[in-house]
Amino acid sequence: MLKINKYVDINTLDKEAKKDYIDRHSAFIDCATEAKKDEMFAVTVRVGDEYPHPDDFDHYISYVQLFNGQTLLAQANFEPGAVFGAGKAGNLKVTFNVVAAKNLNLTAVAYCTKHGLWESDSVKVEVK
Amino acid sequence: MLKINKYVDINTLDKEAKKDYIDRHSAFIDCATEAKKDEMFAVTVRVGDEYPHPDDFDHYISYVQLFNGQTLLAQANFEPGAVFGAGKAGNLKVTFNVVAAKNLNLTAVAYCTKHGLWESDSVKVEVK
Amino acid sequence: MLKINKYVDINTLDKEAKKDYIDRHSAFIDCATEAKKDEMFAVTVRVGDEYPHPDDFDHYISYVQLFNGQTLLAQANFEPGAVFGAGKAGNLKVTFNVVAAKNLNLTAVAYCTKHGLWESDSVKVEVK
Amino acid sequence: MLKINKYVDINTLDKEAKKDYIDRHSAFIDCATEAKKDEMFAVTVRVGDEYPHPDDFDHYISYVQLFNGQTLLAQANFEPGAVFGAGKAGNLKVTFNVVAAKNLNLTAVAYCTKHGLWESDSVKVEVK
Repeated sequence: MLKINKYVDINTLDKEAKKDYIDRHSAFIDCATEAKKDEMFAVTVRVGDEYPHPDDFDHYISYVQLFNGQTLLAQANFEPGAVFGAGKAGNLKVTFNVVAAKNLNLTAVAYCTKHGLWESDSVKVEVK
Repeated sequence: MLKINKYVDINTLDKEAKKDYIDRHSAFIDCATEAKKDEMFAVTVRVGDEYPHPDDFDHYISYVQLFNGQTLLAQANFEPGAVFGAGKAGNLKVTFNVVAAKNLNLTAVAYCTKHGLWESDSVKVEVK
Repeated sequence: MLKINKYVDINTLDKEAKKDYIDRHSAFIDCATEAKKDEMFAVTVRVGDEYPHPDDFDHYISYVQLFNGQTLLAQANFEPGAVFGAGKAGNLKVTFNVVAAKNLNLTAVAYCTKHGLWESDSVKVEVK
Repeated sequence: MLKINKYVDINTLDKEAKKDYIDRHSAFIDCATEAKKDEMFAVTVRVGDEYPHPDDFDHYISYVQLFNGQTLLAQANFEPGAVFGAGKAGNLKVTFNVVAAKNLNLTAVAYCTKHGLWESDSVKVEVK
């Protein structure tokens, strides 16, 4: 059975290694909380906040997905070592743009080739 | 929060509409239960068993994924109306081939553009 | 044999319908011409400039790819009607971020489900 | 500018290294030359014929695409080392199934993370 890791606030964690592990895999959605109807609205999906994730050939973020409710909007796939370079690390980010007709409830998923699926907290966007 | 629909045996369901809904979205893995080490091993991912799923432009199976444990092996993406034709329906299937060095624990995921994510039962394969 | 449509400056074209057709499918790369070594560098892939492309279920931009030389960096896939809404139109854009160690020679590809593959002009980025 | 390598019959080549290089990257379509209208029709995309391609983390076949004319039917993405295992090699294959209403003109594309894009010869299928 697939395990979808959910976001955990690393301030609630004791051990440094665990903070690092959880943080560098966590998916985040960065966007405004309001969007104008029928105008382009930028939504950035980011992986990791304080701790960088490797971009090694055998350990990298292979894809991120952006959902609205249970509906997939977009998926971005990355090649190993293509974003930061093999042997390096960082916080991957990709900015999608959508035109919303109705309120959004966005969720992102990130997939690490070693540590599986990670789901962000959901973000509500009011469309006016 | 994402909902991952899990396999339900439709014989346990009463209503015909529900049987249809559940069955046509369910992901199945068809493969042998044993594989020979270092030999090509075919794994078919199929969506729906007794009931066909539409391939309409606004309602189709957009992708299937094949996981071994929590590790993604492959993802196949389909274009709307490309598999059966818009206005038609059927049971999508795609056959991947892997060479296994160790026992496998396979799980498939199917994504319907209207009804979200569906996870198959897992299938264990002994590698000899 | 696959046809990869190449960028054509629409100012060289006579007919309005042709300008519209060519422009709305053309892929563009928007980024700085210089990047700092080991710093995050934003690269936007955009489809269409003056004319919007439909986001209809049977006619939409299904994916864009970003290459460095002949090497794929990333591919973003979109669902029909998910970016602008079915019945609407616009200029899709997605922003990738890469950390470059060496000079880049970027090319984008866009795929329209009715009108096939479109390759952007290449953009050189000097990494200092 | 992107280079799409086209199929070359390796019997026309002199050097063993060149035969190996060309063959192991070449995409092939294996399918019947006739399909029955409205019946499932299997199309296998295969990479390499006599020479195996590595499945190393930094050198593998990342995706294959199947086109009908200029229209994409499906794309299968693979993770590094997931098909044959890192350090091993083989001829990747994936079998799609389509229901054709009209004659098909199929072309496959394979992408190698080190050696770029490779386009198969096209295969015509008569639909009766």
